[in-house]
Formats: sequence, C-alpha cells, structure tokens
Amino acid sequence: MNEKMNFNPGPTALPDEVLTKAQTGLNKELHSGISILEMSHRSQEYQLIHDNAKSELRHFLAVPESHDILFLQGGASLQFTMVPMNLLSKYNTAYHIVTGSWAEKAFNESQKIGKTQLLASSKHTTFDRIPKRSDWNVDVFNTPSYLHITSNNTIYGTQWQDYEDLPDLPIVMDISSDVGTKDIPWDRVTLAYAGAQKNLGAAGVTVIIINKELLVDHDTERPIMLDYNAHAKKGSLHNTPPAFNIYVLGLMVQWMNQEGGLQEFEDRSNKKSELFYRIIDQSNDFYKGHAEKSSRSKMNVTFKLPTSELNEAFLRKANEAGFVGISGHRSIGGCRISLYNGIEMEACEKLAHFMETFKQVHSN
Amino acid sequence: MNEKMNFNPGPTALPDEVLTKAQTGLNKELHSGISILEMSHRSQEYQLIHDNAKSELRHFLAVPESHDILFLQGGASLQFTMVPMNLLSKYNTAYHIVTGSWAEKAFNESQKIGKTQLLASSKHTTFDRIPKRSDWNVDVFNTPSYLHITSNNTIYGTQWQDYEDLPDLPIVMDISSDVGTKDIPWDRVTLAYAGAQKNLGAAGVTVIIINKELLVDHDTERPIMLDYNAHAKKGSLHNTPPAFNIYVLGLMVQWMNQEGGLQEFEDRSNKKSELFYRIIDQSNDFYKGHAEKSSRSKMNVTFKLPTSELNEAFLRKANEAGFVGISGHRSIGGCRISLYNGIEMEACEKLAHFMETFKQVHSN
Repeated sequence: MNEKMNFNPGPTALPDEVLTKAQTGLNKELHSGISILEMSHRSQEYQLIHDNAKSELRHFLAVPESHDILFLQGGASLQFTMVPMNLLSKYNTAYHIVTGSWAEKAFNESQKIGKTQLLASSKHTTFDRIPKRSDWNVDVFNTPSYLHITSNNTIYGTQWQDYEDLPDLPIVMDISSDVGTKDIPWDRVTLAYAGAQKNLGAAGVTVIIINKELLVDHDTERPIMLDYNAHAKKGSLHNTPPAFNIYVLGLMVQWMNQEGGLQEFEDRSNKKSELFYRIIDQSNDFYKGHAEKSSRSKMNVTFKLPTSELNEAFLRKANEAGFVGISGHRSIGGCRISLYNGIEMEACEKLAHFMETFKQVHSN
Repeated sequence: MNEKMNFNPGPTALPDEVLTKAQTGLNKELHSGISILEMSHRSQEYQLIHDNAKSELRHFLAVPESHDILFLQGGASLQFTMVPMNLLSKYNTAYHIVTGSWAEKAFNESQKIGKTQLLASSKHTTFDRIPKRSDWNVDVFNTPSYLHITSNNTIYGTQWQDYEDLPDLPIVMDISSDVGTKDIPWDRVTLAYAGAQKNLGAAGVTVIIINKELLVDHDTERPIMLDYNAHAKKGSLHNTPPAFNIYVLGLMVQWMNQEGGLQEFEDRSNKKSELFYRIIDQSNDFYKGHAEKSSRSKMNVTFKLPTSELNEAFLRKANEAGFVGISGHRSIGGCRISLYNGIEMEACEKLAHFMETFKQVHSN
C-alpha cells in the first residue's frame, strides 16, 4: 500500500522528528524507570516538561507578559461555555461574528450563559466570506462588552485576513485552526483559545491565552473546573493534567521554533496555499473555490469539481494515490485540502501535481 | 542510578507490554503513514480503537447493557460539576457522604449547582474511616434523590469495604482510585466515573458509566459539552476526543482482561495490600496506620513512623533505594504506598522487604 499523505482537517500530520521524540517519552529507561505516561504531575521531572511547553509556546506566539497561558482539557468546544461563564461577569454583552459552524456553536453556547448579540453573520451566503464592516448589524456597542470571532473556518475555508476593521472592544478569538501561522494582536486580544490537534500537536489539550486582567475575579459560585482564575492560580495543575499531550505540544512547538518560528510558518502557509489557489484560479472553473477570494483561508482550501461524478472520481483517485482526508465537509460537499503546520511542502506539491494531471485528463 | 519503582498516588506505573504497544501506536508505518496521534477521529481506523477500548472496558467491569460508557475529558474533577448539573434536573436532592478531600470537593461543587445535603462525614476524625450507618445525619430521605460516595480515598487510605449499608437510593460513585479491583453493584449504581490515570491507563481521559435512563433528558439550556446525553448520542465523539489517551486505556484494559480480568486484579490487590498491612500490624506501632482497620484501603496504605525524624529518614532511604512517590499527602504527612493495577508484586515485595529491614535497624 502507498504511504498515505494526511490532509485531514484535524487531527493532522506531525513531523517525523516530533513523533520520534514522542515515542522516546514512552520509554521507561530515559527517566530511570518512569515514562511520561506514568509520571506524577507533582514531580520535578513533569514540572520541567510543563514549563518547557509553556515557554516554547510563549516564545513562538510572542505572547506578552500581560497574558497567561493555560493548558486545559475539553477542546475549543468547552471554551464556548467557559468564555461567557467567566467573561460575562466582567462584561455585560458578548458580541459574536458568525463565520461558520464553529462560530455558530460558540454563539449558541454563549446565549445559554448570558447576554449575547449577533454582530454579523455570513450564513445567508453559505459562509463563503468574512463579513465586512459595512455588513454589521450594530455600530454603537453596549459597553462593557467583548467581541468573539473565529479566526479561521475549517469547513468553509475562510479566514480573517487582518483584524484592522474590528471595533474597539476586547477581542476573544477561537484560533484553533490557524494558530501558529500569523501574528495575533495581543494588545487587542483579551483571550484566545485553541485545541492543539491542528497546528500545536495532538488532541487532548487546549491552550488558553488570557489577559491577566481577567484573572482577578473570585466568583466562588462558579464551578472551579470552569474558572480560569482557579486554573491560573495553580499553573494549570489544579487537577491531573493530560501530561503526555502537553509533552507532545511542547515537542511540536519546539520543532516550529527550531525551524524558524512564526514568520517561517506564515511563509510556508502562504506558499502551500498559493500552490492550490493558483491551480483553482487557472482551471477555468474546473476547480471552483467555495470561499470569496478576499476571504480565502490559508489553512483549508475548499472547492468543487463541475459535476458530482467528477467530484467523486477526483476523491476516489486521490485516495488511491494516498491523499487522505480531502473530502469536503458534508454540509457543503466538494473537496477540502487542509494545510496545517505539520504538513510538508513535498506532500502539497504531490497533491498539486495530482490535481493538474486530473484536470488535464478530465477537462475537454 | 537505580531503576525506580513507582508507588505514586497517580498517575502510576503501566505494564511494560502496555508501554511497548503505546509506542507502536506512535509509529507511522503501522497505519500506512498515519500514527494514532495524527489520525482523524472520523476515520474507520480510529473508530475501531475507540470501540475496542469501550468493549474491553465493558467486559472488564461487567457493565450491563442498561449502562452506557462515555469517554470525556476534564478528570473526575469536572464530574463534580457535571453530575449535579445533569442529575439534579431529575432528582431533587444530592446526598453526599464525605470521606476525604476528593469527596469534600464533590460535595462543595454540587452545592453550587443545586440542593445538596451532607449525609455523613468522617472529617472530625481526620477521615480515618468510612462512616457507619449509625453515624448518618438522615434516615428519611427526600425523594427523588441520589447518593454520592467516593469509593476509595487516596489521601487517607480508606475504602468502602462493601455497599450493603447504603440506603435505597440511586448511587453515584467516584471510582477513580479503585476501579478495576472490585465488583461494582451496577443494579444500584446509576452513574460511576473515574479518571483513567490510576487503574485504567494514563491521564487525559475520564470514564463515565451511566444508566441509560439518565440519557433521556433534553435540557437545551445546558451547555452541550456538560451534557451527558449530548456526548452519549455521539458515542463520545461530539468533538475531537483525546484519541491517544483512549488508545492507551484500551491497551491497559485489554492487558488486564488477558491477565485474568477483574477477579484476578481483586486478588492481586488483596495480596499486595495484605503484605503491607501485615508489616504494619506486626510492627508494635513502629509503623502506625492512619486508617481504622475496618476501613482500610487496598489501594493506598497510609502510615507514620514513631517520630518525624524517623519518618524523614524512612522516606529518604526509600527514595535512595528507588521507591518513588511514597511521601504522605501534606494534609496528614507520614507515608503512603499506592498499589494500583500496573504495579507489580515484585516491586511490592522489595518495598516490603525494605520496610522490614528499616524497622529492624531503627527499632530497639
């Protein structure tokens, strides 16, 4: 069988070097008889791993000292609840811009907790774009309030290109699917969160980067496991952490730092995504992109072929050639190529070549 | 340096066979180029791993078809919130028996959610026992209600010996620290939960075993990530699961099944704990147990030496000899030997021998 090339929307490919080191972590011998899966989270050995992951991440994302970094569980999905549960005691309104399914889930969950208002949505155009400032429903904001956005939309293949148009409110960002590929304006972002399984490692740990100003709140009625301050006070060791997952995150971020850091991975994302958008744009609509050009994602390239038969044939042949995970999400069909930081340029070039060849054979 | 022997209160030792297989799971080659850390949770390959872990666990714990098994995140600590958040919409009172620090946390968190009543506590005797039925504060229960207990108390070294005295209420049990070492009366237990990192594998996944009668509730105002029914309907795949941690759980439970199953590990727990309690009982109070004899834990053996100097010397010498993790919890001091299912009899015998020798040298 062919070696598979993993273009899944997440979890996604990890570099060989990271996987090899992860295997080493399961070796008893390295730690005098205790592997990382077995290590006490109260031991000095584990604390080093924990602190290392945190400092590698702080360096990689240029997180200023004004912000703390937490390692929690439950994925970005639990943050849809924790964010309003913690922040709506300080702010009175959560504004949301809904740019895809995950953004919509965040909006729905926030409404269960407190006052939540829709600022803009692109649902009426099947989430093919990031709404422009002229499309917003509100121009005068209740204050104090915050704005929640989803920086990249995996299903529809759209992404915020920059954050210049955003209103002068504290910004909360779900950065799960493009963290580590562009600068984050920390002076404006009061809280950002990301599941690790796309650009930061493997599933099972969630990163929360939070302005320390939000960590002064002492609501003794809030469930302690859902309280950012409780976790921050214990350095994310309030209860047993997912130690191995944090170890893998540390390895992945260390690898990205060694490869050249954030700027390098922004460049690689640009190159990888341009490869595919060029093919789409030069295909005379044989490959038809879902996203508006001005909202295109560098993480997830979404497109359709002219007929459902051709689309199926493309996916089948791609799968036979070893390209895994490129079916579009069932909500929009078509194809999706995900280009996270663990995916090598070489695999992208092979897939691009496959697309060119498929087009030559099947277009007339 | 000596090979270390791991007697930590959790996370704890895993069998070599489990660790070796876990390493294999990080090998790209086994799955045509995609390791378990990189696998899509929507793939057939992952579904097999997920289903296998669930069926091995159902077999191991003899979970009847009346109950579903969920794999969630957040540890037992998040269950302190989820249990009342879900169950207090069906029951009107949560009774709690507080037998240690974790039981107390469960009681405190439940009070934040709804009506929670203390049925009994052994706090006034430093949690040295499981309260007897004659010590309960209540004999007539508000119904409908449930009773929450903590089956084993890691810090104090006490354990429920049987469940015969419990009132005729649905029982909710935190079984984090003795799961897999004794029968659970599923006809009485409506919900049981356990972090995996003691007897079921590694940190990062929490097992919830829940009577399906509790999975009919549709409270659309409950945060979806904190709703058992939402997770059950999606087979614990509502969002990205901690796939590798579930894989390791599957390996550990499969190993325990192959070694002889629950009865075998009950026998081993008996043998391992008897080894240490015999030494304590025959030591003329050189080693003085914390727990009342009738409440002794087979998982955590807690004791003190006659003076703090001797206690420190014991811990120092034990550490030099490679015995790791046997300091008592700071709340009671002394020593604690944890005897989870991954810990080999041979290591226990060495530690027992060390204790005998230390006593001979230091007692007069």
